[in-house]
Amino acid sequence: MTANEIIRKKREGNSLTSEEMQFLLLGYVNGEIPDYQISAFLMAVFFRGMNTEETVEFTRLMLHSGVVVDLSAISGKKVDKHSTGGVGDKISLPLAPIVAACGVPVPMISGRGLGHTGGTLDKLEAIPGFDVNLTIDEYKKVIAETGLVMIGQTKEIAPADKKMYALRDVTSTVECIPLIAGSIMSKKLAEGIDALVLDIKTGRGAFMQSYERSLELAQTLVSIGNKFGKETVGFITDMNQPLGYAIGNWLETKESIDCLRGEHIPDVMELTYVLGGAMVMLGGKADSIEEGIDRCKEVVETGRAFNKFVELVKAQGGDSKFLLHPEKYPPAKYSEIISSREDGFISEIDSLELGLSGITLGAGRTKVDDVIDPKAGILLKKKIGDKVKKGEQIAEIFTDKESVIPEVKKRVESAYTFSSAQTFPAKLIHAVVDKNGVREFSIH
Amino acid sequence: MTANEIIRKKREGNSLTSEEMQFLLLGYVNGEIPDYQISAFLMAVFFRGMNTEETVEFTRLMLHSGVVVDLSAISGKKVDKHSTGGVGDKISLPLAPIVAACGVPVPMISGRGLGHTGGTLDKLEAIPGFDVNLTIDEYKKVIAETGLVMIGQTKEIAPADKKMYALRDVTSTVECIPLIAGSIMSKKLAEGIDALVLDIKTGRGAFMQSYERSLELAQTLVSIGNKFGKETVGFITDMNQPLGYAIGNWLETKESIDCLRGEHIPDVMELTYVLGGAMVMLGGKADSIEEGIDRCKEVVETGRAFNKFVELVKAQGGDSKFLLHPEKYPPAKYSEIISSREDGFISEIDSLELGLSGITLGAGRTKVDDVIDPKAGILLKKKIGDKVKKGEQIAEIFTDKESVIPEVKKRVESAYTFSSAQTFPAKLIHAVVDKNGVREFSIH
Repeated sequence: MTANEIIRKKREGNSLTSEEMQFLLLGYVNGEIPDYQISAFLMAVFFRGMNTEETVEFTRLMLHSGVVVDLSAISGKKVDKHSTGGVGDKISLPLAPIVAACGVPVPMISGRGLGHTGGTLDKLEAIPGFDVNLTIDEYKKVIAETGLVMIGQTKEIAPADKKMYALRDVTSTVECIPLIAGSIMSKKLAEGIDALVLDIKTGRGAFMQSYERSLELAQTLVSIGNKFGKETVGFITDMNQPLGYAIGNWLETKESIDCLRGEHIPDVMELTYVLGGAMVMLGGKADSIEEGIDRCKEVVETGRAFNKFVELVKAQGGDSKFLLHPEKYPPAKYSEIISSREDGFISEIDSLELGLSGITLGAGRTKVDDVIDPKAGILLKKKIGDKVKKGEQIAEIFTDKESVIPEVKKRVESAYTFSSAQTFPAKLIHAVVDKNGVREFSIH
Repeated sequence: MTANEIIRKKREGNSLTSEEMQFLLLGYVNGEIPDYQISAFLMAVFFRGMNTEETVEFTRLMLHSGVVVDLSAISGKKVDKHSTGGVGDKISLPLAPIVAACGVPVPMISGRGLGHTGGTLDKLEAIPGFDVNLTIDEYKKVIAETGLVMIGQTKEIAPADKKMYALRDVTSTVECIPLIAGSIMSKKLAEGIDALVLDIKTGRGAFMQSYERSLELAQTLVSIGNKFGKETVGFITDMNQPLGYAIGNWLETKESIDCLRGEHIPDVMELTYVLGGAMVMLGGKADSIEEGIDRCKEVVETGRAFNKFVELVKAQGGDSKFLLHPEKYPPAKYSEIISSREDGFISEIDSLELGLSGITLGAGRTKVDDVIDPKAGILLKKKIGDKVKKGEQIAEIFTDKESVIPEVKKRVESAYTFSSAQTFPAKLIHAVVDKNGVREFSIH
């Protein structure tokens, strides 16, 4: 068996055996098989795909390349959520404390901003002192004490994925469903979860822009989770306009705090409650998603969810004063209003453009070592379906970089499309995928 | 422009601009773009192909990565031949002196054995003292003095191809027509030729086993040659049984000497005369291939072709005594007769199996640094269509490695298929491809 033969076999469209997958991936991790053979293999996989057995084996090898955290000492079914990433997607911040407040432990290992989409870690780090770089032992301690924990990937978790992802990133082999699925699931399965809820974004602001590809990814992810004995439910959700009104790290954290304190931001809370309802059900604290949603609403209304977030922030070293008094957060040096150029209704908002504009303002990275400005970002004043008059405020931008303002103003303005007749946003939750298949989702 | 973006563009099936091809290939040659990006690119090309402009640009960049030899000081149109390689394909050895004896200068830079097929250099080196490692200046001197020269690729010729080929070899990206075509043509165009004849093998013993793929390769090669202003004619020729009776380096050199001394080995001489006729026509010494063939036959009959070969061998340091007295060549330590296991007619000979058997006997390499035994090989006693009696000799093997004999005997025996009714070998020359298109070839 040689790497060259295995590449050829995949190139010709054949399935690989477990032994062949092991030979290639273990050889790569221990440095016996060079980058240039793996990148050729990855490109062959891009064109030929992997069947379910191969994808499961790929996931298994990456999972077991590192530590699989054992949380069995913590009672209850541990449930996490993963999102494929969107613009304004701060859902993890209100969601995790809500679910934990319902009595379901939430062990969450998240990523940083990638491309035009933000990352949970960057949002948490907007809270001064919040430490996402815990060791595995600290991670176990925080979840044992508070019922939830939110950290970044440690070097012990799926190191093979880290090495592989870095290579995919520079060889145009990222957008490949089995490779994406293996990368996501190897990290999630390492956290110590018993069940998992997935939020697979679809639309202009998502990595998977077409519904068909999003569904394929959802089905692959759900199938892997269930093969590993972790009940997995996936939702395909809309990313044709940003979630909520805030884009940018502190702005989104602030919006999450507002939600936890009872402000009803419709799309953010609809998605949070549906994902939370599913997590509470999977965690055994409700018999159905609907009942789970009711539990989630209760903990927000009683303030227990907000208190749980304060507890988490304190446990991970963050300064909770900004949770209680968000108005004390230092403002960006510059802010600029963007006004409507016409009368009418807002019919489209290009979330990809807004995500990229946020990066230009300082809210994201174009290179791995770029420093993020937590204050930078965009606040939308109007969303799809809203009526506006010419000259009325539609958005506001925040930045410390004066020079980028004229360009970003223009981009944000042109991200909005107007029409004379009122249009309504797409349905937020397109479908749910679980072990029984795919179906439309609606709350009874 | 980044390598990653260019890889993605090709992956998505788009054509690359000259600037993009340059960025990638020049960056690779000067070490700025790493192997792992080029191997991903090559695999994307395997699946997406290249159009004619891209293939020409690819060839041009590899050609100009090194020296393009200027032979304008030598009068006459310089014409070379290239074969995609087959089992028993010693055609270059009789062909080059025949064409040179007709007054057409032949500058030939050849390769070594690759996989199951032999290489011209290894056959020439079976002649003690023959030096294939000339400098470019020595190369020019030999062709100026003798009208022909036969050497190996120097480090000055298409270094980009050398680097790229080594990478393709270990990443399963060899079998890809635009990459093969660029590799062949960049080296041939660097020799200083004015015109080129190509022998594209098809069938079980060839790299391109199907006729369709062989035709596609032939058309690509001919089209590149003509785009560079070098008139190019390609022949698609049969490789379903070995050419001639000899497989192995000295055995093939000896068979070539026999041909040059007037022995008529039908398939070897038919192919030599057709390719030679085309070369003599392209070199301006005949008005048609048929007339060129007549010129070639004349120089064999008069002995001028053989004398030209003796002249070449002397000019390149070889011991010409073995040309005049081949029987003095030291024999292999062991030889074994393979006999027919039945009465009947020979209906098939598996040339791939015979090529691989030859390697096991010591006639070829499985690793780059394997040492070749020039005495090792196989002499066929019978070919397709021949009648045999049970127990009659069908082949003889030669080797210094006693231990491999039982295995090779079995493989050679099983490479022969017998039938009760007489069958005839496939047509040797399937088609000719030139600037006017493809047509069947027959001599009027």
